[in-house]
Amino acid sequence: MYTVDLNCDMGESFGAYTIGRDREILDYITSANIACGFHAGDPSVMKETVKMAVDKQVAIGAHPGLPDLVGFGRRKLDISPDEAYDMTLYQIGALKAFVEISGSKLQHVKPHGALFNMAAKDRELADAIAKAVYDLDHTLILFGLAGSELIHAGNEKGLRVASEVFSDRTYQKDGSLTPRREPNAVITDRAQAVNQVIRMIKEGRVQTVEQNDIAIAADTVCIHGDGEHAVEFASEIHQSFKDAGIHTKKISDI
Amino acid sequence: MYTVDLNCDMGESFGAYTIGRDREILDYITSANIACGFHAGDPSVMKETVKMAVDKQVAIGAHPGLPDLVGFGRRKLDISPDEAYDMTLYQIGALKAFVEISGSKLQHVKPHGALFNMAAKDRELADAIAKAVYDLDHTLILFGLAGSELIHAGNEKGLRVASEVFSDRTYQKDGSLTPRREPNAVITDRAQAVNQVIRMIKEGRVQTVEQNDIAIAADTVCIHGDGEHAVEFASEIHQSFKDAGIHTKKISDI
Amino acid sequence: MYTVDLNCDMGESFGAYTIGRDREILDYITSANIACGFHAGDPSVMKETVKMAVDKQVAIGAHPGLPDLVGFGRRKLDISPDEAYDMTLYQIGALKAFVEISGSKLQHVKPHGALFNMAAKDRELADAIAKAVYDLDHTLILFGLAGSELIHAGNEKGLRVASEVFSDRTYQKDGSLTPRREPNAVITDRAQAVNQVIRMIKEGRVQTVEQNDIAIAADTVCIHGDGEHAVEFASEIHQSFKDAGIHTKKISDI
Amino acid sequence: MYTVDLNCDMGESFGAYTIGRDREILDYITSANIACGFHAGDPSVMKETVKMAVDKQVAIGAHPGLPDLVGFGRRKLDISPDEAYDMTLYQIGALKAFVEISGSKLQHVKPHGALFNMAAKDRELADAIAKAVYDLDHTLILFGLAGSELIHAGNEKGLRVASEVFSDRTYQKDGSLTPRREPNAVITDRAQAVNQVIRMIKEGRVQTVEQNDIAIAADTVCIHGDGEHAVEFASEIHQSFKDAGIHTKKISDI
Repeated sequence: MYTVDLNCDMGESFGAYTIGRDREILDYITSANIACGFHAGDPSVMKETVKMAVDKQVAIGAHPGLPDLVGFGRRKLDISPDEAYDMTLYQIGALKAFVEISGSKLQHVKPHGALFNMAAKDRELADAIAKAVYDLDHTLILFGLAGSELIHAGNEKGLRVASEVFSDRTYQKDGSLTPRREPNAVITDRAQAVNQVIRMIKEGRVQTVEQNDIAIAADTVCIHGDGEHAVEFASEIHQSFKDAGIHTKKISDI
Repeated sequence: MYTVDLNCDMGESFGAYTIGRDREILDYITSANIACGFHAGDPSVMKETVKMAVDKQVAIGAHPGLPDLVGFGRRKLDISPDEAYDMTLYQIGALKAFVEISGSKLQHVKPHGALFNMAAKDRELADAIAKAVYDLDHTLILFGLAGSELIHAGNEKGLRVASEVFSDRTYQKDGSLTPRREPNAVITDRAQAVNQVIRMIKEGRVQTVEQNDIAIAADTVCIHGDGEHAVEFASEIHQSFKDAGIHTKKISDI
Repeated sequence: MYTVDLNCDMGESFGAYTIGRDREILDYITSANIACGFHAGDPSVMKETVKMAVDKQVAIGAHPGLPDLVGFGRRKLDISPDEAYDMTLYQIGALKAFVEISGSKLQHVKPHGALFNMAAKDRELADAIAKAVYDLDHTLILFGLAGSELIHAGNEKGLRVASEVFSDRTYQKDGSLTPRREPNAVITDRAQAVNQVIRMIKEGRVQTVEQNDIAIAADTVCIHGDGEHAVEFASEIHQSFKDAGIHTKKISDI
Repeated sequence: MYTVDLNCDMGESFGAYTIGRDREILDYITSANIACGFHAGDPSVMKETVKMAVDKQVAIGAHPGLPDLVGFGRRKLDISPDEAYDMTLYQIGALKAFVEISGSKLQHVKPHGALFNMAAKDRELADAIAKAVYDLDHTLILFGLAGSELIHAGNEKGLRVASEVFSDRTYQKDGSLTPRREPNAVITDRAQAVNQVIRMIKEGRVQTVEQNDIAIAADTVCIHGDGEHAVEFASEIHQSFKDAGIHTKKISDI
């Protein structure tokens, strides 16, 4: 029997603006990464999203991002490790308050977008983020790209880490994701996406764009909540996991 | 023997911008209200200010404000009670994280500027703010204008409250502050300011602009940290209190 | 033969967030009010929206709002007339740049949301906004609620004004809109909405919620672009105008 | 006889926050680069700063920056050329409105901080910025680091450009500034700073940190307005120029 966590970014609406079909996606996932007001989200969206996750018994993580709302936190910003520490701590603290008044407990932290990608490659940033998480609550689980500096930093700090894999992205021989600017970065065929992720879970291996096979750890699988077919895909991957004998469970229960 | 808390707003710098002589003011006060990033402050300023307060053994409070950086949180914004609840909770949570990693504990919450003034008169807003404080941590002390709706709301909710008085502002017969647009709103004579506040502490009374005497509760005195002579005045009021037999202590120790 | 301008707010998307079906709505309107980055919109959205309007030969107006993105400019903010002047000028200037590089010319200015409503009742704010428009370009047309202070201010300043009416909102006996918090504020029956606006155009009268008839000027009709049925309604009102012998033309051509 | 333009960044205050002694610095410079609300500045500060510059007959330039107020526009942000074009145009347009109502005319554009540095090395960004300036008004003068890609881009586009030199920064053999993280990046000795800049103006040469001599164009000299001794240094450089037979004139009059 195989077990994996299934996570999705959510709470990324802002004021009058809506992104993502959070309520429906919550039916299929086990961990929700909730935006904290920097790259997306606002206090009211955060409260509402936390409440929905609690109601549907989905575990909650903070999803801190860069202070770049217009860029949705996706543009690299040249911050110092100290700034990374401070903005991560701020955002986790803010979300934690909403989790606590809902009678729940924060499970994990997953940086967003460019912060996630920068922390995958820049060890100093990764260390700063891991330290912020650890300093606030050393029982929090740190999500990072499988094989990334963030995973190494979390391990060294003494945090429990979760290696994240993507169903709809291709991998390169060094284990990094193919950059989005490359033509073959995204897997658009859903069956192929599902097969890739199932193999990562069962065999711990993935075929790269260079056609060789590499080892990969797959503790948690990321799906996206904001595409046109996001809900259908969430439902499909959920069913495919069942059919393949893969049980989904929030990471803290694995 | 009389005892009173002496508080000041701080941590209101932002990025490259500096306001307030926080480090020096901290030598004279017992409670620091630290901005939380909405009307002023940023994560790095918050961390630094919390650290300074902890080092100088000054008690720490969250100082949540309206999301209006360019207006410094001083312009009335027509928010709903739900929005007040959400933005208060968010900001307390963010500051609490910095307090916790510093090995300290949050003592109180004092809304800032227009949020403070609106909550003094609008009971629904006051209730929402009191509920946010209570829901997160019912041992927090809520600071409000003496005699205001915020004090009533905190009391009803079951929070410990602290009635705040101002040394350099005049009062009206209903106990409210004379609006700043009135010519006699501010007391510029320092001796007069000191005498007014000492009488409030010792006699529980203040003379209004209408020349009558009213009762007033004075649990904590607010001084300002950003004027040209802020540090001198802080030093002077501190000394005058000593001379008058008034002991200053953080509110949680009174 | 009757002629009227048909306007709609647009360019209110922001970064990754989309609001409004601007491209389709542009097929039915004659004047577009384009957000300027304060309550909504960003530089890239502005450029794109201006380009679409120019392509479809729809006249362009600046749609300045309060600096309150999370509140979408709908929450009253207690700004001074000077601040209103400054923020109006800033936003018109920014949009004007995009209009000029597109080889077009700005036609009008219509304040957004709470700024529009505040300027309808507060003459000092209205004067400040009218002055900003006049100072920058006295040939710009100022849009305001029919009968409002903003219309009076524009007239006094020497600007051409356009009295705006709403198809889907009810009116009170003083000519103001019924506040949205009232149950009968919005007309949900489309036929009734169309009939109300046709009568305003043809007869210059509207029936109020108090059931009496009042005079109203209808130079331009506002429709909304962000509801579920916005495009259908735009199409329907456009057709109903034709059927009723009402010609739609951009205000500067009337 | 030698002639040079002397410029300074200003209008970088924001709301309650003050940076720079603009009023005094204006007595010594010939061109003012005024912030446009993204990295610093707000509409009211912009109006006031433009007014001061007009009163003191100092030429005005737009000083557009990255949308990063907390970082003061100094942190590299990975924007696309299109985004650079859009944000540059937006900011120039906004400032231009204030210049026009003051009865003056915009003279130049100088990008700020990280945008200036990125445009010095990244030709695509430089082209986008030059195009935004040209499209809005091809008579505007584009300021860029002497020898940088921004100067090349402006030249190719057909704009008049002004090569900027710094009095208090050291140069490397490729003509770029020594990065601030290097120990010898800043010249703290004022006499040395003055001598370096006078030689750049008179001889068109500067000695690099590698001790060799390189050619450099010096159309305009940048001084800083926000240090402790900014006004004294402005006065001193102004006097030294006089003594050395260097006349200061706004760039458009040279």
